[in-house]
Amino acid sequence: MKKFSDYSAQIEATLRNLTLPGGDLAGLYEPISYSLSAGGKRLRPGLVLMAAEAFGNAAAQAEDAAVGLEMFHNFTLLHDDVMDRSELRRGRQSVHARWDVNTAILSGDTMLTLATQCVAKVPDAVLRPVLDAFNDMALRVYEGQRLDMDFEQRDNVSIADYLRMISCKTGALLGASARIGALIGGASSDDAALMAEYGLMLGLAFQIQDDWLDVFGDASTFGKPIGGDINNNKKSYLLLTAIGSDTPEATAVAEAMKLPAGDTKVKIVTRLYERLDMSAKCRAAIQHYSSKALAALRSTSLSDEAREPFRLLVEKLTGRKK
Amino acid sequence: MKKFSDYSAQIEATLRNLTLPGGDLAGLYEPISYSLSAGGKRLRPGLVLMAAEAFGNAAAQAEDAAVGLEMFHNFTLLHDDVMDRSELRRGRQSVHARWDVNTAILSGDTMLTLATQCVAKVPDAVLRPVLDAFNDMALRVYEGQRLDMDFEQRDNVSIADYLRMISCKTGALLGASARIGALIGGASSDDAALMAEYGLMLGLAFQIQDDWLDVFGDASTFGKPIGGDINNNKKSYLLLTAIGSDTPEATAVAEAMKLPAGDTKVKIVTRLYERLDMSAKCRAAIQHYSSKALAALRSTSLSDEAREPFRLLVEKLTGRKK
Repeated sequence: MKKFSDYSAQIEATLRNLTLPGGDLAGLYEPISYSLSAGGKRLRPGLVLMAAEAFGNAAAQAEDAAVGLEMFHNFTLLHDDVMDRSELRRGRQSVHARWDVNTAILSGDTMLTLATQCVAKVPDAVLRPVLDAFNDMALRVYEGQRLDMDFEQRDNVSIADYLRMISCKTGALLGASARIGALIGGASSDDAALMAEYGLMLGLAFQIQDDWLDVFGDASTFGKPIGGDINNNKKSYLLLTAIGSDTPEATAVAEAMKLPAGDTKVKIVTRLYERLDMSAKCRAAIQHYSSKALAALRSTSLSDEAREPFRLLVEKLTGRKK
Repeated sequence: MKKFSDYSAQIEATLRNLTLPGGDLAGLYEPISYSLSAGGKRLRPGLVLMAAEAFGNAAAQAEDAAVGLEMFHNFTLLHDDVMDRSELRRGRQSVHARWDVNTAILSGDTMLTLATQCVAKVPDAVLRPVLDAFNDMALRVYEGQRLDMDFEQRDNVSIADYLRMISCKTGALLGASARIGALIGGASSDDAALMAEYGLMLGLAFQIQDDWLDVFGDASTFGKPIGGDINNNKKSYLLLTAIGSDTPEATAVAEAMKLPAGDTKVKIVTRLYERLDMSAKCRAAIQHYSSKALAALRSTSLSDEAREPFRLLVEKLTGRKK
């Protein structure tokens, strides 16, 4: 049985062989190669291939679409890094830091169109449903990013608001990856919808895990500075849960968040999170969404054997350290 | 016979009735409505409708695609205005000036996906060629914008470089509009290619006219401050032709371009352009590309009558004052 890492390795190899125009257009395309060569989990394209293989032994036919989903993901990173003023991405300079903001905008736009082109290389029979799923997903992702930015100015963000935001910003893309792979594999529309649900729920579990790692992860493996969310006053799952708790610590966290960014602030908030047992609370939420992902998976027409790599992927992602 | 202004009026009405999500997503979609409500010539969507009607009485079926092309055009304006730091667009604040840069980036991204969605609403039979034409065009437009930005740093830009740049940045979009309209109308691929050539050549004539208007236009009708290209040291058709001329004025223009931005600079360079008879030179170039547009049009299988509104459009655009 092939597992997720086989598919992600396949995509890694494909991306390494991707050639883009150069010459006097290098200024447009080089940042794209740079962005795609930074590694990463290749979660979205791996999911496309794995779903295509599960439903129709169609991993080979799904390669272009898989590259398209990874290209889309990286496009959002280029633009998000501009919007968030993030200078670092996967341990290297972000595109706007290495080149400039205009380059990140324009090469990002180019990646969105290249992504659409790749996704559109699916067989005619599934072109329309795949394209619809891709475009709908893209709108959800922008909506999620807009909500996320708006959250910065709001002090009444609820956990429900947060879940909606990450459903859009993170969940929709994993959902679309699983759905598009399934469609290419010839899945029925019911099965494709269940796979989208699997991806969405996996995305929620994944994002909460990410929020947890941002506080309790290991700096040497996480790839980003620990405590970044605390220092940026990010409305994370931990912050919203802590502030929403009916405890003395809720007020203390709210007060501590007013401190200037720095190690002291991170230390104080982390200590309060520990007293609130936030690790257990995150674990429970991750468990909740993982179970929903697995329930959707079990409702598909896939055999136990075909489902196994998807089950293992949930385990792998929710137990990860980076 | 319906003429261009009938089609542009039709699109204007359609755009007025376009509804986008609101509520807590207004921050994403309101700037899009704002951008689309600013008027403009509606050249690209008008061309889509006119071509669909000419080849297959299909203006009604081409409405969504026409909106898609206008949406794409406006997406590029949002991002270009950020890259060029333009605060004004069609006599109003540009989106990044009215909101902020992040909004212009993210709502612009949203417009690109909405544009793709609209364009994809064509009948299944032409979905693939229409989508291919749209995506190829989009890449040309980004390449044109990249070249245009790179020109700012170069002092060896030739007229050939300039023509390639505007073929991408302006011509490709007009070409794709005519091609996509023709495809929706059921045109053969030969006819669709000839219509793309018509649009491309019309685009070149249009852009050179635009460069001329930027210097010799009437401030009250042009919508932008006269002399903007001179003050921004833009490598326009006029500047490159003047500098490339074997005359004493060539050196004088190059020297004058080193002056600080302001009325004096505009006045001096304009005087030199007049001595170089730049209006006549622009007119000749516009005539050259207009003729090529009309030659492509005559090579199509369209009847004289069906060709007439396209001929009139060339006349109208190359004789325009705004």
